[in-house]
Amino acid sequence: MYQLVLVRHGQSVWNKLNLFTGWVDVDLSEQGVTEARQTGELIAKNNLDIKFAYTSVLKRAIKTCQIALEVSDRLWVPMQKCWQLNERHYGDLQGKNKQETMDQYGEEQVKIWRRSYSTLPPAIDEKNSLREQEVLHYKNNIGIMPPKCESLKSTVDRIIPFYTSSLVPALEQHKTILIAAHGNSLRALIKHLKNISDDDIMEFEIPTGSPMLMTLDKNFKVVNLDYLK
Amino acid sequence: MYQLVLVRHGQSVWNKLNLFTGWVDVDLSEQGVTEARQTGELIAKNNLDIKFAYTSVLKRAIKTCQIALEVSDRLWVPMQKCWQLNERHYGDLQGKNKQETMDQYGEEQVKIWRRSYSTLPPAIDEKNSLREQEVLHYKNNIGIMPPKCESLKSTVDRIIPFYTSSLVPALEQHKTILIAAHGNSLRALIKHLKNISDDDIMEFEIPTGSPMLMTLDKNFKVVNLDYLK
Repeated sequence: MYQLVLVRHGQSVWNKLNLFTGWVDVDLSEQGVTEARQTGELIAKNNLDIKFAYTSVLKRAIKTCQIALEVSDRLWVPMQKCWQLNERHYGDLQGKNKQETMDQYGEEQVKIWRRSYSTLPPAIDEKNSLREQEVLHYKNNIGIMPPKCESLKSTVDRIIPFYTSSLVPALEQHKTILIAAHGNSLRALIKHLKNISDDDIMEFEIPTGSPMLMTLDKNFKVVNLDYLK
Repeated sequence: MYQLVLVRHGQSVWNKLNLFTGWVDVDLSEQGVTEARQTGELIAKNNLDIKFAYTSVLKRAIKTCQIALEVSDRLWVPMQKCWQLNERHYGDLQGKNKQETMDQYGEEQVKIWRRSYSTLPPAIDEKNSLREQEVLHYKNNIGIMPPKCESLKSTVDRIIPFYTSSLVPALEQHKTILIAAHGNSLRALIKHLKNISDDDIMEFEIPTGSPMLMTLDKNFKVVNLDYLK
């Protein structure tokens, strides 16, 4: 039997301002730090014997992971930062206020971008100053060319190879693993593992600060998924 | 050319109380956190393009590493926690007050244990409650049997294989690497790299909160070692 502790990062500064964030590297808010601490307390209370941790290359997830490990007195746990666990890339919506975007494109269109499984948001403009930083950072430091936009389907498409080549062998070796990531990368992983339909996954909400425990059998079939209490 | 940024962890709670710490997993003091932040500021000020970080499996070094990376806005840097970078194991002196130890064993003997290159301190008592925790943790979580005591020579003996099999290939790949570790594990590494004699290394002091920059040529010969300013 294997265990995955799935944690969505706590509130970020941009969540608070109601901006599309995606791959922009925004910090946790004070409330986000408190939520990460709560996660650590729940890990300790449930005696979860975490032996390995994965997180994205975005600081709001990395800090959530670090804080949760520190509070549960497991800072020694090896932690790997993987771009494959990054949030869905919101293309040209990144950095924009959700209300403004609705005023510009219409509520219906924005709902489609947020809630359709495979519809891509508008690609990020190459002249956007956020794009320039992003390309430089990901090419020089992470070793990939960042996408220009992603649907949830594109996010699933990058999570599956990560699951097969990294997560499965890590589960076999370490049994209990923490993943501190983002709403849509966790949704993508859960869709794949629980074989949830394209429609149903869009309704699947993952709250911040409420870690989930997923139990898998020896064939990596999900036998339980519940919030930690 | 390669660069190693060497950081001794900031003040720990036990440094403050003047206790022998060794492998006991003691947290940073408030001053220690401030020192780690200063390290991050110096990394940013000197534009050090750190692409990989090593630290020990002890929280005072791990937190120093995390804080320095966060303050220099490089939390994305991959960070590996290696027991080989742990502090020298102080055997039965661990947890004891330095003054008490001197009263018990005599100032001269304590000076020998602290300042002789190859003299081992007394082995930790198997009935010591600290030992029980240590053995359980290192066997179950880190996958090694912890030593019962170490001289600086024993510390050098575990650093050299780490240097050859991990650090050299990491330098070849990443060029600039941060190592956040401990007074004696850093001393052991510097002794090996700079080929310092057994006597001279005992006089080599590494202050907390003052990161050093070591520059190596393509044959891994040290060409410069200086404090960051």
